[in-house]
Amino acid sequence: MKTIIKHNLHKKLTLVGAGPGDPDLITIKGLKAIQIADVILYDALIHIGLLDSAKPNCIKIFVGKRSGTHSMTQEEINVLIVENAQKYGHVVRLKGGDSFVFGRGLEEIKFAEQKGIATEVIPGITSAIGVPAVHGIPVTCRKVNESFWVVTGHTMDGKLSDDLKLATQSSATVIILMGMANLLHFVEIYKQMGLGSMPIAIIQSGTLPEERIVLGRIDNIHNLVKQEGIKNPAVIVIGKVVELHRNWRTSMEELNIFDNGK
Amino acid sequence: MKTIIKHNLHKKLTLVGAGPGDPDLITIKGLKAIQIADVILYDALIHIGLLDSAKPNCIKIFVGKRSGTHSMTQEEINVLIVENAQKYGHVVRLKGGDSFVFGRGLEEIKFAEQKGIATEVIPGITSAIGVPAVHGIPVTCRKVNESFWVVTGHTMDGKLSDDLKLATQSSATVIILMGMANLLHFVEIYKQMGLGSMPIAIIQSGTLPEERIVLGRIDNIHNLVKQEGIKNPAVIVIGKVVELHRNWRTSMEELNIFDNGK
Repeated sequence: MKTIIKHNLHKKLTLVGAGPGDPDLITIKGLKAIQIADVILYDALIHIGLLDSAKPNCIKIFVGKRSGTHSMTQEEINVLIVENAQKYGHVVRLKGGDSFVFGRGLEEIKFAEQKGIATEVIPGITSAIGVPAVHGIPVTCRKVNESFWVVTGHTMDGKLSDDLKLATQSSATVIILMGMANLLHFVEIYKQMGLGSMPIAIIQSGTLPEERIVLGRIDNIHNLVKQEGIKNPAVIVIGKVVELHRNWRTSMEELNIFDNGK
Repeated sequence: MKTIIKHNLHKKLTLVGAGPGDPDLITIKGLKAIQIADVILYDALIHIGLLDSAKPNCIKIFVGKRSGTHSMTQEEINVLIVENAQKYGHVVRLKGGDSFVFGRGLEEIKFAEQKGIATEVIPGITSAIGVPAVHGIPVTCRKVNESFWVVTGHTMDGKLSDDLKLATQSSATVIILMGMANLLHFVEIYKQMGLGSMPIAIIQSGTLPEERIVLGRIDNIHNLVKQEGIKNPAVIVIGKVVELHRNWRTSMEELNIFDNGK
């Protein structure tokens, strides 16, 4: 009897992006996946209240990183996903933001598929776009810029620094995730490009009750961050669009976003 | 009595990103806003089923572009938002994808705020990230790339953004929205850079039942698009990550995304 049940078990991995923090910023589809999951493997940055929507007998396993405790390697997580899918059926892998924006989500998908497990990806709101948006900073705005570039700040090697130099020559809004440890590094790149007056916003714990924001310029942002004690998890937004924040003193007429403006 | 009611009216504009197409890819927060809206102004690219969640007496106004009919200017939409908020209270502005990714959302926010109307932004899943994700193409993947660059395919003046030339020189995944009319133009830019073999995916109507995808290289994508009749609304993804699609013949070992790979 046991083997028949195992044979009929619908083994599946669903990657769910939980969004930037506010539990209501998950998608309907993501929430539905949580509701039917047999097992949920969740990260440190997801809102813990989301787990309340799971079935009573759902197994919930924390696989995130917390200071002072041993954190699992990606290989251990991959194996855990497969083991749980084979044993219990539907595994939901709940990750902060979007699973495919610096999320190592594809490694989990490919590993599971290799083991014959069906997979599905449910995207989430990435903090790169959603967090500035909630604060009234659009990553793009007509008449201000025509693109945005999102980069991870914690592997700022030579290649990425070269990319950042290209981005500084464009109209792109530059958004750096997980970049607080390297703040001085990319501030220096902007200064080298003669862009010390470029507006910059840093938002910590965006969309959560404890969120905090600093608005400044490349030249003074490091001091502002020290004064305010801003740290990760934070979204760094660099570009003219930062001036569109309602607390920035430049008015929209000066930025001329309306067709009838001058 | 009438003036008191008017005075107490809670005038508000909520910008809601409806996501890439699948109605279940709206956020919980976005759906809740629809449920309490007095008026919904909606675009052509939102899923019409989302309107079913509105109150029975909610006023629903289509403000999108459809071929053959007069479409409203942004200024007309701005005025319509304010008039409806003043008359009825809570206006939800429902837009495809995310309102701040080439969405002109900020113009609506700023215009409403000038008229004393409270505003809120509820982000949506942008098709730039969500559509490739659902197809198993991550915009970033460890060991493959560490950034992505999102560009509009048609600028205000109808020209291609200069940002694209800079983006092609970076290691970033390049994602182009609303770019089918200029496909040949940016294919040419990649060819000029000696990048004719760069992988490219184009996904039309992503996350909807009628979605279609073509996978190719810069050198042959134009022929593939003609053969398959792919057109807007489409997301164009250019970069090494396209090879991670399960229908791409390169296996993941060759792309070496695992730590134990070689």
